[in-house]
Order: sequence, then structure tokens, then C-alpha cells
Amino acid sequence: MNDALIKEFQAIVGKENVLDAEPDRQAYAYDSAVLDPVTPELVVRPNKVEELGRVLRLCNENGLPITPRGAGSNLSGGTIPKNRGVVVLTNSLNRILEINEEDMYAVVEPGVVTAKFAAEVASRGLFYPPDPGSQAVSTLAGNIAENAGGLRGLKYGVTKDYVMGVDFFDVNGDLVKSGSRTVKCVTGFNLSALQIAGEGSLGVIAQAILKLVPPPAANRAMMAIFDSIDKASETVAAIIANKIVPCTLELMDQRTIELVEDYTKAGLPTDAAAILLIEVDGHPAQVADEAEMVVKICGQCGATTVKAAKDEEDRFKIWEARRAALPALARARPTTVLEDATVPRSQIPAMIRAVNDIAAKYNVTIGTFGHAGDGNLHPTILCDRRDHEEFARVEDAVDEIFDVALSLKGTLSGEHGIGLAKAKWLEKETSRATIDYAKRIKAAVDPKGILNPGKIIGA
Amino acid sequence: MNDALIKEFQAIVGKENVLDAEPDRQAYAYDSAVLDPVTPELVVRPNKVEELGRVLRLCNENGLPITPRGAGSNLSGGTIPKNRGVVVLTNSLNRILEINEEDMYAVVEPGVVTAKFAAEVASRGLFYPPDPGSQAVSTLAGNIAENAGGLRGLKYGVTKDYVMGVDFFDVNGDLVKSGSRTVKCVTGFNLSALQIAGEGSLGVIAQAILKLVPPPAANRAMMAIFDSIDKASETVAAIIANKIVPCTLELMDQRTIELVEDYTKAGLPTDAAAILLIEVDGHPAQVADEAEMVVKICGQCGATTVKAAKDEEDRFKIWEARRAALPALARARPTTVLEDATVPRSQIPAMIRAVNDIAAKYNVTIGTFGHAGDGNLHPTILCDRRDHEEFARVEDAVDEIFDVALSLKGTLSGEHGIGLAKAKWLEKETSRATIDYAKRIKAAVDPKGILNPGKIIGA
Repeated sequence: MNDALIKEFQAIVGKENVLDAEPDRQAYAYDSAVLDPVTPELVVRPNKVEELGRVLRLCNENGLPITPRGAGSNLSGGTIPKNRGVVVLTNSLNRILEINEEDMYAVVEPGVVTAKFAAEVASRGLFYPPDPGSQAVSTLAGNIAENAGGLRGLKYGVTKDYVMGVDFFDVNGDLVKSGSRTVKCVTGFNLSALQIAGEGSLGVIAQAILKLVPPPAANRAMMAIFDSIDKASETVAAIIANKIVPCTLELMDQRTIELVEDYTKAGLPTDAAAILLIEVDGHPAQVADEAEMVVKICGQCGATTVKAAKDEEDRFKIWEARRAALPALARARPTTVLEDATVPRSQIPAMIRAVNDIAAKYNVTIGTFGHAGDGNLHPTILCDRRDHEEFARVEDAVDEIFDVALSLKGTLSGEHGIGLAKAKWLEKETSRATIDYAKRIKAAVDPKGILNPGKIIGA
Repeated sequence: MNDALIKEFQAIVGKENVLDAEPDRQAYAYDSAVLDPVTPELVVRPNKVEELGRVLRLCNENGLPITPRGAGSNLSGGTIPKNRGVVVLTNSLNRILEINEEDMYAVVEPGVVTAKFAAEVASRGLFYPPDPGSQAVSTLAGNIAENAGGLRGLKYGVTKDYVMGVDFFDVNGDLVKSGSRTVKCVTGFNLSALQIAGEGSLGVIAQAILKLVPPPAANRAMMAIFDSIDKASETVAAIIANKIVPCTLELMDQRTIELVEDYTKAGLPTDAAAILLIEVDGHPAQVADEAEMVVKICGQCGATTVKAAKDEEDRFKIWEARRAALPALARARPTTVLEDATVPRSQIPAMIRAVNDIAAKYNVTIGTFGHAGDGNLHPTILCDRRDHEEFARVEDAVDEIFDVALSLKGTLSGEHGIGLAKAKWLEKETSRATIDYAKRIKAAVDPKGILNPGKIIGA
């Protein structure tokens, strides 16, 4: 990039917030997806929201592709700067502007870290439920742009269920406002919602109003151990069929259990075929009733053991083990392909059988864990991308996992986003008219095609 | 409209489903908003979803404005055929395609009546919470297109919170698919959400996937009587501040109480300044605890009496009285202007004081009732539109109500939609860039401007 233009960016955000040295730029060439890196021409970090708008305007005037980036923790290539241009970092825009306890909402800048926000909300006696796996580093605008899910989706929903309003910059750096601090708002087109899962390709989030709820008064965590994965997955369906909606209902298969135990020494039963990790929450009497029913249903469905957490430390251990699933799997082989094809929850048994058949058919190693209660499993393929023969089999296996998910009336992606990784499959789930409609919207609000190009609907 | 074109519509939907006689067309010239009627050129009623697509294509080929219409129960002019053209009725597309009890969702055609759907869902042991005032006649696609609210918004949210997916026809009659039968889905742009509150101006809904939840195990309804409206509205804020989220928390002012009692003879206290109607639901122990706390808080805030419903009949009476509020007010004068400016719930006391001041200032009669718990009040102006002098004062009062709502960080419309009625105020709440962004999207997906023209963003 020429020096004059770099100086213009420096004039907006300050010299120290414009990175043009190659090693600095290389750090923003990739994200958490298994995809080829692309080094941007420049990295710019605004420190005020109005600077963000001015940076966008300057990019637009110069036809420079814009890749907004929070923590880069997404798993679908949403923050890879495919057409180079400028990576715009939002992590310095990290102020919580308001937490309103009476009206139960918060107003935040885009770069607030999810877990820090949730902790601050908790300290005010309220609850922000969305808890994506990357919450320790992920940003709230990143969560919105990917519509991040997490462990509590079954009962509490996902990020989109907590977005009351989004102000965002259009490609010209003008501020678009949508939504409200009120529970009900139907003023104008639902433009906030269009930024949800939009991956920054239709605008760049400047501010969000997020819904908060009262925290549950009590909770109870349990672990159920099974000698067959079929029994475990059938238990998931049986719990829901009994009209119990746990806040969390997670599954780990044998391979995941072994690797987690090897990594954490948490005392998991490495001889089990599968475990379910279950938490119910709410009024203490409801928690007691539901926990009793869950234990009973697990037994009826063939669990060999059901353990309830005795105290907060016990409970913490259960969820620490679950959170270790991905890092534990990732240690096993050089490359971790983490999928999130999702099915209606009653199809979980069929999906798990299919994943295991596919692993055998293509001779690939798949560990499966995830949010069984909401049908959102994470079949995780452990491989080495440098082994081209093996990786070709991995890609075939992934294709077939998607085909099975769609045949079970599921979806390509539950919570990781389409990004670069899954754009090519999008039409299979939707229709040609769907892609055309999306492309018409994209072209209308981003005529030069510079807002995070190549994502979701392809180039 | 010329006969050849009429014959083409008849060829798609059958002769009996094309209305071209003037008296028939006049019946579709207005809806439930207080606005001038516009008689369409033709009224067409498809009987199959694929016929709907073909009707849209024929309209598009001939540049005919399209006004989709369910029950016409909206309050913002969303179904007035402003540029004439064709009113497309969806009320024959009224099949419930699937109620999936295991996975807790339903798939419906656009014209299913809300209350019939809720009853069918209840008969399967599940619960569809959205309950707009017009639910006895309103259609589910109408609810989605207006993002209809209702009495349960505070705890259960509004229509948008139950939309998992929408398939819709673009203006050319091609089917766009968005969303999924899964709880989590981030596949592609959030196009379903764009149809929510879109009032049919960005597409015509062909099918929806709706989320269902387990019904609450217990509930308790209460009525609290106050000798001052300030005390009543402060009670609303106090209940929420105590982290109790009732499923319903409604307010009626003195004028509304008197007119409802006159209409229903339900035994309401006509000497009260205000009443709150409150229902808590959930696990029986939670209901007992919360009901006890609500009674205590009402007393602390100065309620003169708090009555709990003793049985289901008692409970039914309370909600029947509430549902009678609008018809009771509507009987008093020839014209009923029902507003829904909405504020963060802690601002309810300020909003009610402002509405009463405005009524005095402009010498207009306003009865106020509504969903106080979610900040969504319905100040209802009783007048006679034929009295031009009076109606000018009414319009000034409405202007000022909106100004106050915005100054209290509220919104123009909580649940009634923008339609024709409020389009002129939209920029005041948002920004020029917001309107421009919306217009770019509208022009991109509807280049001829024939999808429900004039609504939301104006002409």
C-alpha cells in the first residue's frame, strides 16, 4: 500500500494503530478455521467508534476490501482477508456503555470480550446466557456477526435471541440504527437481524443493545455414563420428550472422553462408550424435580451410572472437562477439522450412527462431542493437512456428513458460520433463488463488493 | 383491469377465487388502522402455495402492485393497497403441515389462524406463546410480517422469538429458503429475519417453521387495585426490579376500567384509578413463591386491594376483562386511534404522566391500557375523525406522544408496525442512513416497487 494512503489511516487512528510491517500483517492472515492464510495489505485498529466509521469511509473511497475482526476465533474463515485489503480490528472498542438493571439490557461497543461482559453482568445480579466455546477471547460483535451458539442453546437460545438492537456502519461509514432498548420494537426493517450471522459482509457493527435476564436461582449438574453411544443419544431424545429442557445437555463419545482424560486427568470414565453431561436450572423445587426425572430417564435408557455434582467444585469439574474437549482433541493430530452440521434433536441417534459409518468408510479419525440437546454435534476430524491423500478423504467425509445432516432435515452449520469454509454448499441447503436474493441485497448495500468479500454467498 | 389479464389470474387460482366486482373489492380497501381506504383493482385468493408463487410472477410481469393480506387485522395500514393493484389473500393457505412434538417445532402455511394454531399445539401438550390481541382472526404470516406482540411479551417474547425459518417468494415468484428445523442455524444471510416486520414489502411468506415450548405446569392470575395511576405504574417497575418476570403484567387506567365494566359487567372496580392484571407461571413452587412476592410488592407500593384468582373461571374472567379493553374503548366514540409507542419499562410512570398531560393539553380523550410489563402501552384516543378540528388536535397529540417516547429512549411502535401510519416518523427514531440502507435493500429485491408499496419506508 502506498505511503500517502497509510498516512491517511494514521491520521484517523494514530500511527501506533496502523500495522504495515509484514510480520505484523501475517498475524492477521488466518483465523481458527483450517484454511489457507491470506496476508492483508494493512491492519488498522480504531480506538473510538467514530474512528471506525472514518476508516470504513476511507477504505470505500479507495476501493479497499474490509475485513472486520474481533478475536479471530471463528471457525469458518469469516475473518480471513480473502481479497487482502484492510483488516479492521475492533478489540480496542471494548467499553460496556450501559448495564441497565431495571430494564434488563446492556449497551456495548463491538470489541467487548464475551466472558468479561458476562462476568460484569453477573456482578450486577443479572445473566447473559450465550456462552460460545471461545467466550474467553471472543468479542460480542464477533458473536453477533457469526450468531455464535454455545452450551446453553437448548434452553436459552443463541446470540441472536439476546440482540435487541444493532447500530452499524454502512460501507460508506454512515451509521445505520436498528432496534431499541425496549422489549418490543417493530420500527422499520429488521436491519439488526440482518447483521446477525452476516459476518460483516453487510455492515460493520458499531454498537449493540443486548437483552439480559434474571439468573436462575439454582442449578444441578449431572454426568451419565453409557456403554453404548446409541443408548446415550436415545437418552437425549427421551429427556426432551419428557418436556424437560435442561440448560445444558452435552455428549462426548469414547474417543473424546479418552483424549480429555489424558489432557485433564479429571477422572472421566475412559472405558465408557459415551457420557452425557447435563445441567438443569431454575427455581430450586423445579431443579430438584427435574434432576430426579433426569436421573430416572437416564437409568431407564440404560445408563450404567449417573452421578450428580455434590457441590460447586464438582459442578465446575464437569464443565471444565466439557470445555477441554476441543483442545484435548486438537492435541492428538496436527490438524483439527471441527464440524457443526446440526440436526433436529430427535435425529441425534441417526446422525451419530452416520458419522461413525462415515469415519469407517473413509478411514478417518472422528471424535464426536457437542450440544446434543439442541442437535448441534461437533464431529471433529483429527488429521494432518500436509498428508494430501488423507486430507482428500477428510474432505469427502465432510461432504458426506453435510449430505446426511440435510437428509435428516438439518443444516450445514449450527453455530460456526458459513464464511469461506462452507459457501460452496449453501445452495444445496437452500435454493438458487435464495443465493440470488442474498446477492441482490449484498450488491445493493456494498456495490463495490469490499465488505468482507467472498464470505457466505461466495465471490 | 382488462379481461385478458383477469382470465390469466383465473387460470391460476380458479374463477371463484378472483374477485373483480366493485363491492367485493371494496371489502379489501381498508384494514384496522384509521386511514383512508384504497380500493384494489383485483382480489385474488390462491388455494395452494405454488399458486401464490404463480400469482406473484403474473403481477410482476404486468407491473401490478401486490398487497399480501391475511386477516387485515393490523393497526398500521400494512394491508391497505396504497397503489391499488392486486390484493393477494393468504387465508385459504391454512394448513398446519407438521407439529413435531419430539423436536418442538411446527411447520405452517401462511394463512393459519393464530388462535386455532395455538389450540392445536396445546392439544399436543405444547405451547405457542405469542398472543396478539387479534389472535382469534389474525394469521401466522400476518403476525410474522408485523412481528406481532401480545400479552406475554415480557416473559415469552414476541412472534420473532418463535420464528425458526421462513420460506418466502421473491417478487418474481421464486422460492427463497431461510432458517431450519434446528434450534441452531447460521446457514446464509438471516433472510427469515428480514421478513419479520417486513410487512410483505421484501417478499411474500410461503411457509414458516415455528418454535414451540413446553407449557408451564402452573399459573396464577391476580388483580391489584390502586387509587393512583402513579402507584400502579411504580408497582410494575418494582416487580421487575425484584427479578420477577410475570408472563403477563397489564395495566388499565380509570377510563378504560369504566368502559370495560360498562361493556362486560365483569365486576371491575370502577372507582379505582388503575388496576394491574398480573399472571405468573412456571413450576408450581415458583408460582407460589412469585405470587406471594407479587402480592407483597403490590401492597408495599400502595395497592388498596390485591385479589388472586381462585380457580380457572376466575382467571378466565380477569383475562376476558383485559381482552375487552379495546372493543370497550372503541364503543365510546366513532373513531379509535390505538397507539403503541413503547418505552423501557422503568419509564412507564413517566410515560403515563406524559400521556395524561398531553390529553389535557390538546383536550382529547385518551384511555390507556396495555402491556405495562414490557413498556408497551396503548394510549387510545377516542374521537370522531369527521370532526376535522378535533382530529387535528388528535394528530398533534399523537405527534407529541411519539416525541415523548423517543425522549425516554423508547420506540415509535412496539408491536403494531409502521405500515402507512408511521412511515413519516421513521427517520426521527433512526437516521437518514438507516432509511437509505433500507431503501437500497428494497430497490434491490423489488426493482419495480410493487411489493406492498409505500409501507414502512414510504414511497
